[in-house]
Amino acid sequence: MRKFISITLFVLSGLFVASCTDNSGVRPEPIQEEWSIVLHGGAGGKSEMPAEDEEIFKIFLNEALVEGKTILENGGSALDAVQATVIYLEDCPLFNAGKGAVMTSDKRHELDACIMDGSNLMAGAVAGLTDVKNPIKAARLVMEKTPHVLLIGEGASHFAKEQGLEIVPNSYFTTEGRVKEIEKLLSERKQGSPMGTVGCVAIDKNGNIAAATSTGGMAGKKWGRVGDVPIVGASTIAHNGVVGVSSTGHGELWIRQSVAHDIYALMEYKGMTLKEAVHEVLWNKIDKMEGGTGGGVICIDATGDIVMDFTTKIMFRAWAKSSGDTGAAVNRTNPEEKKI
Amino acid sequence: MRKFISITLFVLSGLFVASCTDNSGVRPEPIQEEWSIVLHGGAGGKSEMPAEDEEIFKIFLNEALVEGKTILENGGSALDAVQATVIYLEDCPLFNAGKGAVMTSDKRHELDACIMDGSNLMAGAVAGLTDVKNPIKAARLVMEKTPHVLLIGEGASHFAKEQGLEIVPNSYFTTEGRVKEIEKLLSERKQGSPMGTVGCVAIDKNGNIAAATSTGGMAGKKWGRVGDVPIVGASTIAHNGVVGVSSTGHGELWIRQSVAHDIYALMEYKGMTLKEAVHEVLWNKIDKMEGGTGGGVICIDATGDIVMDFTTKIMFRAWAKSSGDTGAAVNRTNPEEKKI
Repeated sequence: MRKFISITLFVLSGLFVASCTDNSGVRPEPIQEEWSIVLHGGAGGKSEMPAEDEEIFKIFLNEALVEGKTILENGGSALDAVQATVIYLEDCPLFNAGKGAVMTSDKRHELDACIMDGSNLMAGAVAGLTDVKNPIKAARLVMEKTPHVLLIGEGASHFAKEQGLEIVPNSYFTTEGRVKEIEKLLSERKQGSPMGTVGCVAIDKNGNIAAATSTGGMAGKKWGRVGDVPIVGASTIAHNGVVGVSSTGHGELWIRQSVAHDIYALMEYKGMTLKEAVHEVLWNKIDKMEGGTGGGVICIDATGDIVMDFTTKIMFRAWAKSSGDTGAAVNRTNPEEKKI
Repeated sequence: MRKFISITLFVLSGLFVASCTDNSGVRPEPIQEEWSIVLHGGAGGKSEMPAEDEEIFKIFLNEALVEGKTILENGGSALDAVQATVIYLEDCPLFNAGKGAVMTSDKRHELDACIMDGSNLMAGAVAGLTDVKNPIKAARLVMEKTPHVLLIGEGASHFAKEQGLEIVPNSYFTTEGRVKEIEKLLSERKQGSPMGTVGCVAIDKNGNIAAATSTGGMAGKKWGRVGDVPIVGASTIAHNGVVGVSSTGHGELWIRQSVAHDIYALMEYKGMTLKEAVHEVLWNKIDKMEGGTGGGVICIDATGDIVMDFTTKIMFRAWAKSSGDTGAAVNRTNPEEKKI
């Protein structure tokens, strides 16, 4: 991943500040009510990122943040905010979702996404998409236009086409970095670490919580492997009055522990704070499981408090609150964070 | 479903007592240690089943029960017991899993299954299988032979073939009753109720809990719709020391509420008994959600206590404990059951 970052950043940094930014509209004054938003662009790594690379990544993370933050400032819904943010991250080739997704063992892309609305516990998800430009849009339409939660494979693509979503050739998702990555993995007969999933959680001025997650999954995956991303309760959850969660990491661990629902349940049934619940699940459960490469979560509770935590070396993340607290980071900013 | 049952029972009852039963071996004396097993063959219906039909169904439910019970009596594992029981139910054309599965809107079969081992929280699942005779065997192999939890579609089939599982043409799963059902649904432009999923939960003499679920999903489903069955934490869970759950019902509700993990969490974090937790989730959550057709769960706690509850009129079920308590039922046996 480090090599990919280094190669890609030089090529893409100029391009993306231009192409992923929409500064055309005049933004009205923010409404003075409370909201919060947090996003991630994946977690992983065996070492911290050099400061100069981190600074470049923060440009993109902040760009993505603006997408959702603007909606919340203007009184829009958490649901629209998380979707807009994830669309930016899907379109940005630096992350493992949409354009720039990792490749399967047969050098294709299979994409998963999930979205949940905490106001009514409605949810939509897709798995194994190969030709829908923005899987998170398909997930949203599954939630709103069908009686279902999860559609997979060709059927999900047919639905997306019926709904008029933009269809692209599978090669649209490919980047030079991902081709090099898969060729290296195949030559070493390995699977990659599941790094780079994207997600967003928000609470809007009405107290509605939403969460969304999108991914290309695990580089070198085969047999139609699906991770935690399209699994409500594993990667993603939103329950008004309690918490919203989006995850990134070793999906199999997340499924086996129902991580997102477990954080919800520890708060709702055991009375833990968000920070305590996240610590319990990430450090006392996930980090102690054998064979995993860990990962991270981003969460917002009903008061708008944000928790971002990860068992890996880095997690791409950015956040903003109506109070003015905002930022972006890749490396761990507080070495004591895990020792609550 | 009533018509299908009536038509099918006359034709199949004699046949199945013969073909699904394996009485060839001499069973050794049971080991005198505690175990429990419970199975379901789906829940649904708008009215109770006539007593004479119920009696015939109980023959098959008891036959399925013998498969798992024998393993537990002889000191086998809960994992082997739930798998053997589900294989019987998949092979039996009366239930919506394996042979006899419902048909999709294009008159095919797409099968899902999940298995979980409470001793180590390992799990395996498959979704959208079209040609593997016993999807539960594929789920077990995903758990034991891959680093993954969930495989879908063609990839899952390729894996099953690599593992040497029996492959069948899609038409193998078709029964006359299912053809009539889908033709009626298509002519009325409806989807069927998701009735007939099968599942089993067991605790063995070592205190290990396992759970397994298998289904053809919702009759008339389209767009690659997948319900709760392959979703760990939605339909199925097994955590030693707490609970095992297998579900049947309107899968979308189960996914949105993470039903199986919610029952676990209410017991583990809120100190509820199994009966209280099931009541809370089924009657205070699922039954109050709009647009759903309900369903049921079968559960075993760490002491071997069994709870079977359902918000529908009927649930096909059977149970046995080392204490000698055993039985099978379709209609509700205790009208006060829901008023804990």
